[in-house]
Amino acid sequence: MEHRVLWVDLSTGETWEEVRGLEHLGGRGLGVEILTEHLPAGADPLEERSIITFCTGVLTGTPAPASGRACAVAKSPLTLTVFDSHCGGSFGYHLRRTGYSALAITGVAEEWSWLHVTGEGCRVISAEELRGRSTSETVRALESKLGRCAVACIGRAGENLVRFASIMHGSRAFGRGGLGAVLGSKRVKALAVQGTLGIPLAEPAAFRAEALKCHRKLLSNPACMTLKRYGTPNVLEKVNFLGVLPTRNFSAGVFEHAGSFGAEEVIGHLRAEEGCFSCPLRCGKRIRVGKAEAGSLEYESLFALGANLGIGELEHVVRLARVCDELGMDTISAGGTLAAYFEALEQRGNPCWGDFRLALRLLGQIAEREGEGMALAEGSARALPEHSISVKRLELPGYDPRGGAGVALAYATSPRGGCHLRAPVYVDEYLAQTVDRRTTQGKAELVKHRQDLHAAIDSLVMCRFTARALAPENYAKLFTLASGEHLSPEELLRRGERIFCMEVRFNRREGVGEEEDTLPERLLTHEIPSGPSAGMRATLEPLEEYRSLRRC
Amino acid sequence: MEHRVLWVDLSTGETWEEVRGLEHLGGRGLGVEILTEHLPAGADPLEERSIITFCTGVLTGTPAPASGRACAVAKSPLTLTVFDSHCGGSFGYHLRRTGYSALAITGVAEEWSWLHVTGEGCRVISAEELRGRSTSETVRALESKLGRCAVACIGRAGENLVRFASIMHGSRAFGRGGLGAVLGSKRVKALAVQGTLGIPLAEPAAFRAEALKCHRKLLSNPACMTLKRYGTPNVLEKVNFLGVLPTRNFSAGVFEHAGSFGAEEVIGHLRAEEGCFSCPLRCGKRIRVGKAEAGSLEYESLFALGANLGIGELEHVVRLARVCDELGMDTISAGGTLAAYFEALEQRGNPCWGDFRLALRLLGQIAEREGEGMALAEGSARALPEHSISVKRLELPGYDPRGGAGVALAYATSPRGGCHLRAPVYVDEYLAQTVDRRTTQGKAELVKHRQDLHAAIDSLVMCRFTARALAPENYAKLFTLASGEHLSPEELLRRGERIFCMEVRFNRREGVGEEEDTLPERLLTHEIPSGPSAGMRATLEPLEEYRSLRRC
Repeated sequence: MEHRVLWVDLSTGETWEEVRGLEHLGGRGLGVEILTEHLPAGADPLEERSIITFCTGVLTGTPAPASGRACAVAKSPLTLTVFDSHCGGSFGYHLRRTGYSALAITGVAEEWSWLHVTGEGCRVISAEELRGRSTSETVRALESKLGRCAVACIGRAGENLVRFASIMHGSRAFGRGGLGAVLGSKRVKALAVQGTLGIPLAEPAAFRAEALKCHRKLLSNPACMTLKRYGTPNVLEKVNFLGVLPTRNFSAGVFEHAGSFGAEEVIGHLRAEEGCFSCPLRCGKRIRVGKAEAGSLEYESLFALGANLGIGELEHVVRLARVCDELGMDTISAGGTLAAYFEALEQRGNPCWGDFRLALRLLGQIAEREGEGMALAEGSARALPEHSISVKRLELPGYDPRGGAGVALAYATSPRGGCHLRAPVYVDEYLAQTVDRRTTQGKAELVKHRQDLHAAIDSLVMCRFTARALAPENYAKLFTLASGEHLSPEELLRRGERIFCMEVRFNRREGVGEEEDTLPERLLTHEIPSGPSAGMRATLEPLEEYRSLRRC
Repeated sequence: MEHRVLWVDLSTGETWEEVRGLEHLGGRGLGVEILTEHLPAGADPLEERSIITFCTGVLTGTPAPASGRACAVAKSPLTLTVFDSHCGGSFGYHLRRTGYSALAITGVAEEWSWLHVTGEGCRVISAEELRGRSTSETVRALESKLGRCAVACIGRAGENLVRFASIMHGSRAFGRGGLGAVLGSKRVKALAVQGTLGIPLAEPAAFRAEALKCHRKLLSNPACMTLKRYGTPNVLEKVNFLGVLPTRNFSAGVFEHAGSFGAEEVIGHLRAEEGCFSCPLRCGKRIRVGKAEAGSLEYESLFALGANLGIGELEHVVRLARVCDELGMDTISAGGTLAAYFEALEQRGNPCWGDFRLALRLLGQIAEREGEGMALAEGSARALPEHSISVKRLELPGYDPRGGAGVALAYATSPRGGCHLRAPVYVDEYLAQTVDRRTTQGKAELVKHRQDLHAAIDSLVMCRFTARALAPENYAKLFTLASGEHLSPEELLRRGERIFCMEVRFNRREGVGEEEDTLPERLLTHEIPSGPSAGMRATLEPLEEYRSLRRC
């Protein structure tokens, strides 16, 4: 088996094909490999020579669970690191069924365009009439033109190169890292993918049997069943209960209005469920409160646009999340940037925590780069460095790293900056509580293991939520039976390690050095002031041990 | 002779004295030496550990011409390079008469403060009542309190950490590089210096004779006499005539309203002359047009706030220049940043060239970091990289480098970024026209020579305008007779070379590498469209030869 990569250079209009092996599995590994090889060192993420890839893996589109996902990889305009951003739904499914494992885009189109990707290649089509449209309007316009297809597009934020612009696929997103701005810099408003080819499987019958086993494991796992019932909002109560729910720009760990965002409260407003292709969990919950409605409402949005801004009404947060989706902006970075700004206003004697109308107005201004939005569109680390709670310029997600030594180490050493998903140790320390969050012992090893494992899972491409139920053995077996290339569980981890190291080396090449493996100064020096985690400070004590384990 | 440096750490309140030799002469050389030795590598210009020095030289306060000047040195928040910024008037004169050659400030004061510097040291005094005041109000408040003294202060821009905030001394400025933001980050609103001690001279009589000779040379030099009559505005007509007057963000080289800024036109509105201590030229011209009045109106302000914004009325430009002075902002970077923004608005279909009221409003917003000003306060390279005409993030001055190969090379290789003063080759190529501006031959050598010479002049400290009339022999002799340490003209240049290299090495250490020795892409690829320099593009052809000469 091999990966066929479809290249398109928008400056020249040329397309060509490249064939690559499975050395780095696919997905995230494939994207990083392409970027490492083809992106000129030091190239700006928003310049003509930049490259953005959309990658699938050998499990994409197969009967394995949650196999509709895809992974976009580019140098991020927000972090200036390599950045892989993942999206559920069916985009990956359709892309892989074109016969191409990946699409790689470079150059800049002469006019605003959309790309029509099929088994016959990629056509570049004028999108001047789509310019300025919201993401849902754009999806609808292309779906009504093409019929069955998968659309990924940018909103106003991506058009205006907001550094945390997302790429939206319905209510799912390639959310973090501003890859929407990379598409915007190429004048690509949307991609519409239509795949009709079959997915190759080396041993179809054995693969189906293993896939079925995995589906059953998911459906008999309590954590997965909670996810199935409530979606990610289920974690908010737990995080608040532990006192690590970042509130008012990380100035507190307990939010007095957390009750408004309880799992039962949120699910009481359920309007529809949205699942990825071939996923038994269907964790995307469409929520309607009053007049506000948002698809796939996630915990991270409740944290970033709710607690972290001091906004305590569910309807308000749903409205803000929807606005972010329609404008095409990452809710975590948008919320983190507003939180930094709210804090700056407070220091100027103008406190505005909880001011929903101000937040709403600022989101619009950011997407248009008007007024304060002109600065805030750069993200908190550039616009308000002294108030920014970020690592490598990426705003932190909703798990205060002061409450867990592993979470702190995972944030600091993530190659894409402040991120909980490179090594989801928040699961071990905060949710499952299978390890003691207050000790540093063993955390270096744990973080490294999770980083390697998830680099592999992201490269298969599989949903990382499946890791609550599946073991490395399951992933290795699925890969072996799909590709025909034998992979042991140990080799799976070694491949993950190689992919992770490739990312670290990419960052070094681009000038993002080891000294950026740290946390916001404030979290290292200021304790969580009250609640169940009162008195805790972030520690980087295990960093040295981690470095001795992580040799790139 | 030696340099006594007065240190003050605002965080601890401690002051102490350091004694340094004349190896790097003084002034600029002394400041860079202090920074290299004491500033931790990688420190942010606006953090607590940052250092700002105010330095004088062995000629400061002596009867040598224009010897009242001083030099501030810090790592610039705009360019992230080492940055020396020079100011005329009498600040240097007063500082040297305290018995200290230099003042070095680190740490952050607990509350907004002003520093009272005398022969007895430095006192830190509350300035809460000065906060928010304009620069002229601040100077008046301290002068009325202290009587005879020299005040340097910041305005709202410095208080709000605008990256191109200046430090004002009456209508003179430590203008470029945002050193006002460095003071602001230390919560220092002003310095008031009162010196009463004599200036040491090794051979007083011989020194006075040589100084008198230099005064006579200045007064018999035609270029200096033009400067004496008209101040720097005299060059505008010449630059426009050559077609290298940057207009509307460097989109043209001829400005149709240049006549409004002719030397005779400007001087017709003369209200007063302001000279530096011991200068026979008194080139600072206070101009009043209608209700607008600005002290020391310079060519660079006419270019940056006039032609480069398409604003053609002298009264408007005088008003904008005054606003910049009162808010404490570098007029070149303020104008360059507005020009980039005007161009962005034009591309969005909203042309506003010549819109004086918009420019006025934006300057106020920048100083307050409100609305669009929040982004624009970061300077054009950060706020609007695709429209920024800057080198190393410093907005270019008013000589289009496309019109002269030497000017282009000088801008590209300046260690403090887009600057005409490290190697004032615009004099040779555009004003005196002693070399052919259209050839690249000999330009590498010329630029290197000027860089070395002016590094030495800046370190004596002498006004660089004196170089129109004085030779290296004059400077070397003045230094020898003042310090008692023999210096040949050749050794003067070697010292200048060492100082320049110390700056280059500082920049390398801080991550500003050789690849940043370049020009805005647009000037390399787009020709001057019309006028006497039509068809010219910037060239960096002599860069290789320059590098073979410049070995640091």
